[in-house]
Amino acid sequence: MKRLKIKEVLTNGKTETQTLVKGWVRTKRGSKNVNFIALNDGSTIHNLQVVADVAKFDEQLLHEINTGASLAVEGTLSKSQGSGQNVELLAEKIELLGKADPDKYPIQPKKHTLEFLRENAHLRFRTNTFGAVFRIRHAMAFAIHKYFNKKGFYYLHTPIITASDAEGAGQMFRVSTLDAVNPPLTEEGKPDFSKDFFGRPTNLTVSGQLEGELGALALGEIYTFGPTFRAENSNTTRHLAEFWMIEPEMAFYDLKDNMDLAEEFLKYLISYALEYCSDDLYFLADRLKQEEKGKPQDQRSMDLVEKLQFVLNSSFVRLTYTEAIDILKNSKPFKKNKFQFPVDWGIDLQSEHERYLVEKHFKCPVILTDYPRDIKAFYMKQNDDGKTVRAMDVLFPQIGEIIGGSQREESLEKLETRMKEMNVPAEEMWWYLDTRRFGSVVHSGFGLGFERFILFVTGMGNIRDVIAFPRTPKNAEF
Amino acid sequence: MKRLKIKEVLTNGKTETQTLVKGWVRTKRGSKNVNFIALNDGSTIHNLQVVADVAKFDEQLLHEINTGASLAVEGTLSKSQGSGQNVELLAEKIELLGKADPDKYPIQPKKHTLEFLRENAHLRFRTNTFGAVFRIRHAMAFAIHKYFNKKGFYYLHTPIITASDAEGAGQMFRVSTLDAVNPPLTEEGKPDFSKDFFGRPTNLTVSGQLEGELGALALGEIYTFGPTFRAENSNTTRHLAEFWMIEPEMAFYDLKDNMDLAEEFLKYLISYALEYCSDDLYFLADRLKQEEKGKPQDQRSMDLVEKLQFVLNSSFVRLTYTEAIDILKNSKPFKKNKFQFPVDWGIDLQSEHERYLVEKHFKCPVILTDYPRDIKAFYMKQNDDGKTVRAMDVLFPQIGEIIGGSQREESLEKLETRMKEMNVPAEEMWWYLDTRRFGSVVHSGFGLGFERFILFVTGMGNIRDVIAFPRTPKNAEF
Repeated sequence: MKRLKIKEVLTNGKTETQTLVKGWVRTKRGSKNVNFIALNDGSTIHNLQVVADVAKFDEQLLHEINTGASLAVEGTLSKSQGSGQNVELLAEKIELLGKADPDKYPIQPKKHTLEFLRENAHLRFRTNTFGAVFRIRHAMAFAIHKYFNKKGFYYLHTPIITASDAEGAGQMFRVSTLDAVNPPLTEEGKPDFSKDFFGRPTNLTVSGQLEGELGALALGEIYTFGPTFRAENSNTTRHLAEFWMIEPEMAFYDLKDNMDLAEEFLKYLISYALEYCSDDLYFLADRLKQEEKGKPQDQRSMDLVEKLQFVLNSSFVRLTYTEAIDILKNSKPFKKNKFQFPVDWGIDLQSEHERYLVEKHFKCPVILTDYPRDIKAFYMKQNDDGKTVRAMDVLFPQIGEIIGGSQREESLEKLETRMKEMNVPAEEMWWYLDTRRFGSVVHSGFGLGFERFILFVTGMGNIRDVIAFPRTPKNAEF
Repeated sequence: MKRLKIKEVLTNGKTETQTLVKGWVRTKRGSKNVNFIALNDGSTIHNLQVVADVAKFDEQLLHEINTGASLAVEGTLSKSQGSGQNVELLAEKIELLGKADPDKYPIQPKKHTLEFLRENAHLRFRTNTFGAVFRIRHAMAFAIHKYFNKKGFYYLHTPIITASDAEGAGQMFRVSTLDAVNPPLTEEGKPDFSKDFFGRPTNLTVSGQLEGELGALALGEIYTFGPTFRAENSNTTRHLAEFWMIEPEMAFYDLKDNMDLAEEFLKYLISYALEYCSDDLYFLADRLKQEEKGKPQDQRSMDLVEKLQFVLNSSFVRLTYTEAIDILKNSKPFKKNKFQFPVDWGIDLQSEHERYLVEKHFKCPVILTDYPRDIKAFYMKQNDDGKTVRAMDVLFPQIGEIIGGSQREESLEKLETRMKEMNVPAEEMWWYLDTRRFGSVVHSGFGLGFERFILFVTGMGNIRDVIAFPRTPKNAEF
């Protein structure tokens, strides 16, 4: 007999037919005569209710059906007598596939803290919350590929191990096979990287952008979707040492085209989530409400689904950095000295400033453009004012910056001058400069931090809860 | 005026309408009166022929339209007078976006060796061959996501930086932020990894399987698609230090289900390539024929498209390792001492053996099962014979092993015993063993090396030519 997934049983299952399901026990409750077993197989957030007539089954078997145990259950699918589900499975055969000792199994049917579940990340997929989060994460990854594929972008795998530092300022992880205790040394007593695996010092990439540009300036429109790394000692709810980034890069796009793409892209993803993940989203929306019950009304989050619909239906406001600084300087919190960080033309905006613009002033997503060149990377297209570059940051409620991008400098001369000013080693980047030397064109791109976006979509508060096995300072478990 | 992509112009372009295209010059030829410019923008392998009336344009402009230069061309789309294309663009405005000095631009319109193009990997996307390869690579990546999404598998991002060694025998890259010259030392004079970023020694992953199992034993069916690493000093046409793997892992699948999935999956990808990449495939098929013109008839490859259709229409033959050894021992090359490596029960099959089975004996793809346990990993399900495990390798013509997988050992006791025998540190893998401790179920999975598969689909001969920026011993350029 062919096993059916529980999602299929709950949506298309025919009552009065013989049905086989397999899954893990979420809860068991019951009376003297009948046991109700909630079974889940990961295909949906909903459980299938298995009804077991106590008289029909071995006592020991029923005794061992505990939370976490795995079962195969065959029986007749029936219209449910109880509320909360349409159908239930009247068990005829129950096979206990794997036990879960209730004295030892960590994931018991009670409220666990997110911290506790993080320490049990190998089992947390078996909870409603993390099932929902990782199904949504999957759906968003798929939607990203679907969106770009449909638009004719090519997925490019840029290298993970790299000898270059794309941002010119990253804190990077060294990759090496040299002996850790006694590496071969040069005459100056430094490790002799010419003897290392790649014959030179190598690191984990901080961005695939520079290589992405090489692809775009031949294939037209490309995107990357891969892991990136920061060896930054930040123990916050927003930082990971290993995270996934999406970086589209497009020939013949100027900054306006870039902004249009970013807005359309984000809205596509959100509409995809609303269409394909509604069960999981409603569960998480509810979860968030429960979490925030104790908070005063004005500190509670917007309803998760409403928030997504709101962003979907907003036109993102576009203004320059300079205009944003003016707004901030005229704001109440600035005048009342409520901002923690200073506001001055030339500074990097802090999360508090970004969120003020988005949440208080415009009350919708915002795209800031034309940032001071001194706080941005060398490759951004220089404006004629000699002070600003054609950068853009997309700012979201709750998250702040969710996308950073720019039009790229296509002039070889300007790029070389800027690299010299910023001490970016041009010799090592001969291949990057070749794109400006031969058939250079206007082009643009941006980066979306996947986990920050998943935080936004799921309403989760800690970035460690939206990646399967987070890598953070002092933590590489699993 | 909105730019159209050349693919769109060639397939849906309306003649006698004003059209704007942008792209890179592949070739220019012409007479006194007219120039024919082949323009490509990466959207298709086909070029758009731009016809420029010499009298209409500045002499210097036409002079600077060389191979590799980038242009914006506006004009009237017309039915082509010449053969080889249906439409051509009669240029009215030509803007030279970026020059390409013919004395310096490496990619000239002549035959370049693949070695030369590898040294110019930053520009090789601009050739027909590599344009085709990377468009196909994109299509295959998309098809992988599409296939699994449709079947209800979830894409799981398993960690790249890891403290565990999935295969128990990998040559791994160390990841560290400790000072390379003077790392902090323990009392025993070894590097003090407790002071390293993660507080312990960490490496780049060799496989996401173990973490994938954690996902499958909660979410049901998952797959990974990410980079994996081997610090193996192999300078061959089949090895990369950094490559991409797809690893599905499924609860409730036994070995037969696993084989069925692998066969269906590979056939889906091949049929997708035939449906969506035919222009690029026919180009590469033709390229292969040209390459092999000098070879004697019997050493030439099968036509690329025919090869793909052949695999698509074959039923993969399934037999045990033990049966395969018998066949090999009764084979002509064995009897005539033509195999380079020995054939004996217990040995690991070599590529020559695998290819004999596939190409000479069965003349179709082959799945071998039930390998000797001593040549396979600790986690494979043990057969009752005490000698073999429920492993499977899918063998393809030209490539040999393209997929390796197994049913996994679900018995905690057997797994722990085997780990002890093979010196796999069970304490460090408490989280892996927990899946067998709590709600263990029959499950299976496999791994597909993405680049090996792309070699097969594109007919390319060197694995460095199917990944954008190959990482191999002494080579981390770009």
